[in-house]
Amino acid sequence: MNVLLINNPTLSFIDSGIGECYDKGSYGVDTEKGINRIDRICNQNQHDSMLRFAHYIFKIELSTSALLEWTRHQVGVDYAVKSTRYCTKQDVGNIKVEFSKNEIVNDMLLKHIEEIKQLIIDNPTIGNDDLKLLLPQGFIYRMQVQFNAQSLKHFLKLRTSKKAHYHIRDLAFEVFNKIPNEHKFIFNEVVNG
Amino acid sequence: MNVLLINNPTLSFIDSGIGECYDKGSYGVDTEKGINRIDRICNQNQHDSMLRFAHYIFKIELSTSALLEWTRHQVGVDYAVKSTRYCTKQDVGNIKVEFSKNEIVNDMLLKHIEEIKQLIIDNPTIGNDDLKLLLPQGFIYRMQVQFNAQSLKHFLKLRTSKKAHYHIRDLAFEVFNKIPNEHKFIFNEVVNG
Amino acid sequence: MNVLLINNPTLSFIDSGIGECYDKGSYGVDTEKGINRIDRICNQNQHDSMLRFAHYIFKIELSTSALLEWTRHQVGVDYAVKSTRYCTKQDVGNIKVEFSKNEIVNDMLLKHIEEIKQLIIDNPTIGNDDLKLLLPQGFIYRMQVQFNAQSLKHFLKLRTSKKAHYHIRDLAFEVFNKIPNEHKFIFNEVVNG
Amino acid sequence: MNVLLINNPTLSFIDSGIGECYDKGSYGVDTEKGINRIDRICNQNQHDSMLRFAHYIFKIELSTSALLEWTRHQVGVDYAVKSTRYCTKQDVGNIKVEFSKNEIVNDMLLKHIEEIKQLIIDNPTIGNDDLKLLLPQGFIYRMQVQFNAQSLKHFLKLRTSKKAHYHIRDLAFEVFNKIPNEHKFIFNEVVNG
Repeated sequence: MNVLLINNPTLSFIDSGIGECYDKGSYGVDTEKGINRIDRICNQNQHDSMLRFAHYIFKIELSTSALLEWTRHQVGVDYAVKSTRYCTKQDVGNIKVEFSKNEIVNDMLLKHIEEIKQLIIDNPTIGNDDLKLLLPQGFIYRMQVQFNAQSLKHFLKLRTSKKAHYHIRDLAFEVFNKIPNEHKFIFNEVVNG
Repeated sequence: MNVLLINNPTLSFIDSGIGECYDKGSYGVDTEKGINRIDRICNQNQHDSMLRFAHYIFKIELSTSALLEWTRHQVGVDYAVKSTRYCTKQDVGNIKVEFSKNEIVNDMLLKHIEEIKQLIIDNPTIGNDDLKLLLPQGFIYRMQVQFNAQSLKHFLKLRTSKKAHYHIRDLAFEVFNKIPNEHKFIFNEVVNG
Repeated sequence: MNVLLINNPTLSFIDSGIGECYDKGSYGVDTEKGINRIDRICNQNQHDSMLRFAHYIFKIELSTSALLEWTRHQVGVDYAVKSTRYCTKQDVGNIKVEFSKNEIVNDMLLKHIEEIKQLIIDNPTIGNDDLKLLLPQGFIYRMQVQFNAQSLKHFLKLRTSKKAHYHIRDLAFEVFNKIPNEHKFIFNEVVNG
Repeated sequence: MNVLLINNPTLSFIDSGIGECYDKGSYGVDTEKGINRIDRICNQNQHDSMLRFAHYIFKIELSTSALLEWTRHQVGVDYAVKSTRYCTKQDVGNIKVEFSKNEIVNDMLLKHIEEIKQLIIDNPTIGNDDLKLLLPQGFIYRMQVQFNAQSLKHFLKLRTSKKAHYHIRDLAFEVFNKIPNEHKFIFNEVVNG
């Protein structure tokens, strides 16, 4: 599991966007007045469309299982996923899995992935479009994913829930950890311990 | 591979929508005049947002590989996917795979899926959240998917291309086949033989 | 103010969509069991993406003021708006306004709209692209608008609020009235008296 | 007419996103190699979803007519519009109009706007929700608007067309002018002289 924030997100355009609506101008996001206004308008008054003016871009390593769930977030989320159609046999050594919480499952997962790697090495002419069908849901993808603050809040609400699968839940908390501390007041209310 | 159109789509509200814009009223979708206007406005003049007023709902059986690609269509497409978190060990007999075009791959795919099924049968207490991580990308999901005519046209353009993976490409042609014949004039231009 | 439901919406594909996720099949929307499941899954469990499988298409007459607010609903809402660029001087007799709650404003609104109509009649060569700039926010547009049940619920929540402008608020209640009675259990919780 | 680019857009995450898909890494957007890859992938190969990783935020002054057309861009565009419900009578001196290309229309536009301003001054107790219904489509709104590069390209294609209303067309060219020169290769092909 690996989560990296790769851009330098700012709340400045949330601040200026709110200021525009009410003709009050920007207050500045390094002032209590500015932060309090964002909190009041976007968290308490639910005028949360203003949150779309901040972006967070992450590099993520995640299991296929987590990817299947993650990409169901369709609005305000953008993806660049490493393609198994272009990059499977090109780098056999890097085929990795994320394990389950059950040892019996993990033993089979490990056995299968080793068999797949051996099959690739032994059969260099088989194409990725065929090979990829063997990859288990534990197989680790890599992606660049972009949220705006509104869609990120929605993602964190759903995926930090105790009902979420443990892979995506762990990632959701890790995403939350990587958010700059001074932005966390936007997301705190939806992150369930 | 299995594609079923489950609703009874109509072009009537494309017709009435166009009529609204120009204050001309509905022409009727059983008239040449009405069909010609849709063709002219939506295909030739690229005023294709009117196509959003028709919906197509399908039941699809598809490999995990195809599902991963399909769900990347985010705008104007809605999904209800059979959950492997709720429905894996409940119906072991129905765990099936879609094969590749390579026999060596298929042999391993078959071997792995049989081992997974046996593991489930032998270990009835292991939860789906663990088990699902074993499922290969050949594993067949089932879903209900909804397009509007605009997003369906975009899907068909991308996924009937020769560059598409053969699983989703076969499905795209099958989807096209299931569209009512009298609607096909909307999609013909993007479906590459 | 004028709201007309022009399609025949069904909850059947919400029912079948939920059934797909949990591999339970359709229960039928004419059964208590089916309706109760929709209520439980979509209202109480907030698995409300399933609501996207029902559509409501309306013909609406509304003030420019209300149109400006309405079209800010961007997700899951589709529009076909009568174009003032094509249809202003073509039908001068039908240029109408929606009044405010203040008589002084209404007097000026009426005076201005009559002056505009006279200007159009007196200057038949002036183009709509120029003329339309005169039209006040009380001017009545006509549109065909499509919601899915999820976006309609969001619209009703925001626009039946006491904070909403009275034009769009009146329309929101009228929209709610036009929803089939047997669908109202989906929307009741968000419609504020 | 007034267009101001208020953020400092970067193509870096388009570059890294493309690099992620093909496991090639970032090439850098200050290198010919990096720019050429963006051009090849996003312009020529139409893999233009990668364009969503760059954002452009503008402050715009525009007529109500242009706002009505602009806000119909629903996907990948975010808005913060100065509210006439909060800011009409508060700043009467700043009520301004964008003129048409016809003198007769402009005379009436000027007369009406002066009458509206006088009415506001003479009747300080009338609320904005009533007053705003008088404002003509020439009335100038102010907004903060955010595009990603994909939605911006679509906007420029439609709105620089000779078929577009001259208000939004002038704005579209002005928006194009404000895009950093080193980003213009993305948009050049859709901007019609």
